[in-house]
Amino acid sequence: MFESAELGHKTAKADYDEAEPLLRTQLLDAQFDLLEQKQFAVVVLINGIDGAGKGETVNLLNEWMDPRHIQTWAFDSPTSEAAERPFMWRFWRALPPRGRIGMLFGNWYTEPIRERVDKVSKRAELDQQLDEINRFETMLVREGVLLIKLWFHLSRDGQKKRLKALEKDPRTRWRVTEQDWRYYDLYERYREVAEHTLRHTSSGEAPWMIVDGSDANFRALLVGRTLLESLRKRLDLARNWHARVMAPPLPPPDEARNLLNSLQLRQPLDKKAYAELLERYQGRLALLTRAEAFRKRSLVLVFEGADAGGKGGAIRRVTAAMDARRYRIIPIAAPTEEERAQPYLWRFWRHLPRQARVAIFDRSWYGRVLVERVEGYCSEADWMRAYAEINDFEDQLADAGAVVVKFWLSVSKEEQLVRFNEREAQPHKRFKITAEDWRNRERWDDYARAVCDMVDRTSTETAPWTLVEADNKYFTRIKVLRTICERLEAALE
Amino acid sequence: MFESAELGHKTAKADYDEAEPLLRTQLLDAQFDLLEQKQFAVVVLINGIDGAGKGETVNLLNEWMDPRHIQTWAFDSPTSEAAERPFMWRFWRALPPRGRIGMLFGNWYTEPIRERVDKVSKRAELDQQLDEINRFETMLVREGVLLIKLWFHLSRDGQKKRLKALEKDPRTRWRVTEQDWRYYDLYERYREVAEHTLRHTSSGEAPWMIVDGSDANFRALLVGRTLLESLRKRLDLARNWHARVMAPPLPPPDEARNLLNSLQLRQPLDKKAYAELLERYQGRLALLTRAEAFRKRSLVLVFEGADAGGKGGAIRRVTAAMDARRYRIIPIAAPTEEERAQPYLWRFWRHLPRQARVAIFDRSWYGRVLVERVEGYCSEADWMRAYAEINDFEDQLADAGAVVVKFWLSVSKEEQLVRFNEREAQPHKRFKITAEDWRNRERWDDYARAVCDMVDRTSTETAPWTLVEADNKYFTRIKVLRTICERLEAALE
Repeated sequence: MFESAELGHKTAKADYDEAEPLLRTQLLDAQFDLLEQKQFAVVVLINGIDGAGKGETVNLLNEWMDPRHIQTWAFDSPTSEAAERPFMWRFWRALPPRGRIGMLFGNWYTEPIRERVDKVSKRAELDQQLDEINRFETMLVREGVLLIKLWFHLSRDGQKKRLKALEKDPRTRWRVTEQDWRYYDLYERYREVAEHTLRHTSSGEAPWMIVDGSDANFRALLVGRTLLESLRKRLDLARNWHARVMAPPLPPPDEARNLLNSLQLRQPLDKKAYAELLERYQGRLALLTRAEAFRKRSLVLVFEGADAGGKGGAIRRVTAAMDARRYRIIPIAAPTEEERAQPYLWRFWRHLPRQARVAIFDRSWYGRVLVERVEGYCSEADWMRAYAEINDFEDQLADAGAVVVKFWLSVSKEEQLVRFNEREAQPHKRFKITAEDWRNRERWDDYARAVCDMVDRTSTETAPWTLVEADNKYFTRIKVLRTICERLEAALE
Repeated sequence: MFESAELGHKTAKADYDEAEPLLRTQLLDAQFDLLEQKQFAVVVLINGIDGAGKGETVNLLNEWMDPRHIQTWAFDSPTSEAAERPFMWRFWRALPPRGRIGMLFGNWYTEPIRERVDKVSKRAELDQQLDEINRFETMLVREGVLLIKLWFHLSRDGQKKRLKALEKDPRTRWRVTEQDWRYYDLYERYREVAEHTLRHTSSGEAPWMIVDGSDANFRALLVGRTLLESLRKRLDLARNWHARVMAPPLPPPDEARNLLNSLQLRQPLDKKAYAELLERYQGRLALLTRAEAFRKRSLVLVFEGADAGGKGGAIRRVTAAMDARRYRIIPIAAPTEEERAQPYLWRFWRHLPRQARVAIFDRSWYGRVLVERVEGYCSEADWMRAYAEINDFEDQLADAGAVVVKFWLSVSKEEQLVRFNEREAQPHKRFKITAEDWRNRERWDDYARAVCDMVDRTSTETAPWTLVEADNKYFTRIKVLRTICERLEAALE
């Protein structure tokens, strides 16, 4: 894998001086087109061996292009805010919006590689992490991100020479740390882990580019040209670019019997029994969210359901049991301008709770496979891939200690009509029915099919769906509360 | 100050039960109107004595209203991200956008009061902090925020009774901490500091409302009604609301001699001397930003200047000396939708650098007193108050260890024309001249006047302006670099 990169490529100064002015100009023009088009973001990963010129190259690219529209990130150890959230959280925060370039040092590859070199993790664990990375990167690419992965390489001798040279010069001495020498001693092991990593994460969509770091002129031109060519290719496609994904057709639905119409939607529960159960479960929930064992966990609640399904009422019974300082409700409406400039899941990542906190999503990332599918706001390929992306997302939440509880509140078409009519008769403005509510009703069967597919494809061991029979509000609220209590109790045990 | 609040107000259960349903409905309707109008944000400060019902009241308000549009924040000790930035940074992050309500526990009053009770700070220091708070709150109010400040009070006996009662009940025992009893022992001192604080921060625009916390029913209705009345009053004004600020007229400008036309804009420096000086100052800057002493500091650079004044070129010479991992350039254009829903300075607070980092603003918060003033994008009262608000903002930056360096690049009208014509002849798209550039040129004298006022009013000891003669690009870049080096050297000594 590193064979070519160890041949000792060189570019003579004269050749470099001749090539550089044109390359700069072309890069700047490409960057300008990127900024004007605002069709995609560029993420450049900067990885590789210490001393192979990563920092120099990025500094040079910043000189060549307009540094105002490049965001360079270096990730040290996670801050306390990041440490309380899933591993990928701080990388999501660093993603550039469409039109911009992000250069990421010390990105999602650094820790898995280091842990394996230091034998903190086993080979199987590394492979699992690489798998997750592959899926994450595939998602980025399909969301339109231009992903360029650069690995800066040096031979063992090359690294030694380079570190010595840096140490000798008083102006660069500070750059060589003990850690660098420790890694030099582990060179063979590091090389082996790196090769394994690169092999398993070089895909057609996001291949690695290995850069021979031994000659500054050579690597500068190579990186500059790689960036230019990738940018140009993608810019020329402009709006015609599409992730090459074909979604196989889903099996035709069985209208006669599906997950929703096999539910008995009106479940008995009278007001008196409700009041008793409400007090009981709210009491349990109050203690659970204040328990010692919850301090290192978090709770993520997802509420989905048809209009007038009772989401709001259920959420209020849940929050009544909790301290307002500890929960946050995130109502999901149309994305803001900043959110539209990012991959789909970005706007949910920004609301993930810290430890000991509760995040309640009133509608959620499932919008992609519900409203966006039914209304045709995204392509079939987009919502088809969303199932797997969502499962990955929820897995990461669970890995970080979050308990993920998801509800579909299933109300019958008849009961919905009753509630719509009741609301229209109400003087309270907050209950007003919009034209959109009536429109959604016409799409009832399309939504039902989307819901069944959603549950089939995203009800997982770590984050199962709970279908709630919702024609009787009392029953709905109790089932929601009970489910949360039970899931929390099981998790905190 | 607390006299009335210690009378032991009570509301009988029957009276409460009668009043509550209507109050809830009215609050919900008001909240709905707030959300629909999206004209202003509501910030509710929750302060006062432990055990006086702060948590219960906020939980109740969340039950009464729609909790999906209320954000409740509790501030413990600052996270590492917050600790590296000015004191107010985390509160800025918690401000609700227009249309929403934010409830802030443990806000900007908590630390100043605690430090004074614990004798960590002197009376004069507290007064200085209260002064800063006053100015901050005035700014919020003038930016349109509805600020409601609640102080929950209990008499000494009342607090003892309450803490004992909480401790006795196994379901609430966890809520009473050692800290609470320690503060009870300090009751008299705490009361004295609180009274002083309230007196000095109760203004006509943002008065304190003292809530007798001894009876749950009484305090709930009082807080609910206060909130309702404040909301209603402000909603009824709607778009007709204006901060009552009159800006006194500025003295007429002296066209013959002002800060700009007394500069000799074309300063001599030839290419050869430039190359030498460039190397020297870039070398100095490289070492300074990597120095040990810079680890606990940060650098904030502000670049302002007429179009084609050479900002971009100067910035590139500055960044060429630094590691891309350590600086970020923030180009300021029109605010995004999320930024428009916040007070003016919010969008700059979100870009403040961590320690050992450099933030370079390419245009900045001075837009308020430059383009917004000249083009009439805000009222005279708004830009007049901005001078003082900006000074406060920069003081906070400096207090947190930031070195703030501000440049006005002053190019002559003739030289600008030469550069515009050059640019129009250029094939590079990035240099294209827009209609706006030509339009701004027509406003030359208005801008000149705005610049002179800006420098007079915001060149402070902690953050002085540097006027840069900008007709000779070589000279401009060297003066910028030299100034940054000198300011940094003085600060790091």
